[in-house]
Amino acid sequence: MSRYFVSKYAALTPYTPGEQPRGRQYVKLNTNESPFPPSEGVIRAVEAEGHRLNLYSDPECFVLRGRLAARYGVEPDMVMLTNGSDDILNFAFMAFSDEQSPLFFPDITYGFYPVFASLNHIPYTEIPLTDDFSIDPADYAGVNGTVVIANPNAPTGKLLPLDVIEAIVRSNPDHVVIVDEAYIDFGGQSAVSLVPRYDNLLVTQTFSKSRSMAGARLGFCIGQASLIADLNTLRYSTNPYNVNLMTAAAGVAALEDDDYYMGNCRVIMDNRAWTTSALEALGFTVLPSKANFVFAKSDRIGGEELYLRLKEKGVLVRHFKLDRIKEYNRITIGTRAQMECLVDTVKEILKEAAV
Amino acid sequence: MSRYFVSKYAALTPYTPGEQPRGRQYVKLNTNESPFPPSEGVIRAVEAEGHRLNLYSDPECFVLRGRLAARYGVEPDMVMLTNGSDDILNFAFMAFSDEQSPLFFPDITYGFYPVFASLNHIPYTEIPLTDDFSIDPADYAGVNGTVVIANPNAPTGKLLPLDVIEAIVRSNPDHVVIVDEAYIDFGGQSAVSLVPRYDNLLVTQTFSKSRSMAGARLGFCIGQASLIADLNTLRYSTNPYNVNLMTAAAGVAALEDDDYYMGNCRVIMDNRAWTTSALEALGFTVLPSKANFVFAKSDRIGGEELYLRLKEKGVLVRHFKLDRIKEYNRITIGTRAQMECLVDTVKEILKEAAV
Repeated sequence: MSRYFVSKYAALTPYTPGEQPRGRQYVKLNTNESPFPPSEGVIRAVEAEGHRLNLYSDPECFVLRGRLAARYGVEPDMVMLTNGSDDILNFAFMAFSDEQSPLFFPDITYGFYPVFASLNHIPYTEIPLTDDFSIDPADYAGVNGTVVIANPNAPTGKLLPLDVIEAIVRSNPDHVVIVDEAYIDFGGQSAVSLVPRYDNLLVTQTFSKSRSMAGARLGFCIGQASLIADLNTLRYSTNPYNVNLMTAAAGVAALEDDDYYMGNCRVIMDNRAWTTSALEALGFTVLPSKANFVFAKSDRIGGEELYLRLKEKGVLVRHFKLDRIKEYNRITIGTRAQMECLVDTVKEILKEAAV
Repeated sequence: MSRYFVSKYAALTPYTPGEQPRGRQYVKLNTNESPFPPSEGVIRAVEAEGHRLNLYSDPECFVLRGRLAARYGVEPDMVMLTNGSDDILNFAFMAFSDEQSPLFFPDITYGFYPVFASLNHIPYTEIPLTDDFSIDPADYAGVNGTVVIANPNAPTGKLLPLDVIEAIVRSNPDHVVIVDEAYIDFGGQSAVSLVPRYDNLLVTQTFSKSRSMAGARLGFCIGQASLIADLNTLRYSTNPYNVNLMTAAAGVAALEDDDYYMGNCRVIMDNRAWTTSALEALGFTVLPSKANFVFAKSDRIGGEELYLRLKEKGVLVRHFKLDRIKEYNRITIGTRAQMECLVDTVKEILKEAAV
């Protein structure tokens, strides 16, 4: 830290992204990327933009915003786009929570929530998941604050049904409920359908997972126009050109190739079922997941040890050094070949551990 | 505004970006874009990334950071990259200024500075430029606060020599001096050479102007490692993956094609000299510019009227409705053909106005 760093940020602990290894090639199942490349249309769209990068992108994202609105059955002024959905979460925390409307989210969820809260000096309460790592909706009924729920939750993968989400939204009419649907396309039902009825609901999604665009950075949110206007006040006070030309064009093309991406999601759901069964057959506890990852532990080997042994053998998964979940690993669902490699490597490690 | 918007941002006035017209084709001289396309190497680099967008970009920007450090003769840990240099400015304001270290910048400068200050609730003082729109260095000597200077300044285009910048940095040893060099490649001398000697100097630059990458969003800053570490604490608490794969690759390729870009800068400087003479011949006052734009006014037609008449005739320039500069327009320097079109159109307008 320099002697110039202001005191208000001195104690800040930043987010730790998953490893992005350089050098050695891993079977990379640690950051919930899609194993499938972008569609041909996206690749061509990106190619077409290269020659005109000297021009600014459209801060209003007019074309892409219109297409997204049509895809999700809402009006264009109910949509905002950003450079990945992290930016939206940060803006939403800033816009809708403060000392008078503190934050409530689970103790085990996306690790960036407490970081955004700390960055903005917003008080927050981490509500413990139940013993089986579920969100108890009763814990969020009328909490008198801003609620943030990842649905499906990460790193557990567990999904709340839509009527439960609706009950939480309805019980907090004077505060915004943010539903972070980064993983919704892998078997969940989106809360976007509720947006016309609730002016306190904000739904965020991303092109990073189901649409194979993690490297392009494109997130979006859907809410009633007045919420979106507030978020745009912050976006236009920070970085109006935050979505670059290439990513905006890729987003449009990805929506045109929706069938390809939704087909990929079905393959991943199949591979998730296969992986869950295979790990359970090895004695693992695997939480029932509706995301593109599973959260699993074994009684025969510790979570960190399994993570390290897998890494040694060229398979990268994500381990969190947090008390309640330290025996677990979060394993991204990739292609069938990748999952077979994971399961075979786990078998090998368990055999070695038994000797 | 929704009823959920927190009070601390209710009075915020966002930045207004220059128009990005849809539909009609203009001779577009309003947002200081380069008229030259990216190099062939950049176009190829972007094409090569399209097929692997399913993978996250490297939050450390390892390769590009190393190349930039080599290009500017510093160590990699003295460089940070972001999604356009607006992000850096916002982080730098957050990191190095507060009630104890308020901001000082000119009354006429990049319009985003007061927005970033307001967003972060940092007190700021706008120091009037002199009557000829110069920065008086004496105004910034030992101000006991964080100094922000665009050099060359915008929208005036006026440059401070390096020894004057150094004197300002030296006179404020307990505060950071931020030198915003978005336009430095068009005839200025960068303060990067001073960074090894001053731990309170932060220099920001962008690939948007001289390197024809406005639409790709790539900004960077150079400072001593401890300042960069503070900025990274904020970046990793906001959006660690803020530079996408395609832009990072384009940045590397742009540095490999440095001769092409620096050649383009020389052409723009020639066109700037030509445009300045041509406008002066028409009776305009043109401030001496070291940027890729000129700031000019005529005694024969008001600033806003000229802007509107030019727009009618298909030439877009930028007019600011601010008291001290409302008779001026900021005119981006494009190709010679574009500048000839501008000058011919101005002649036509002056002739019509004289009737």
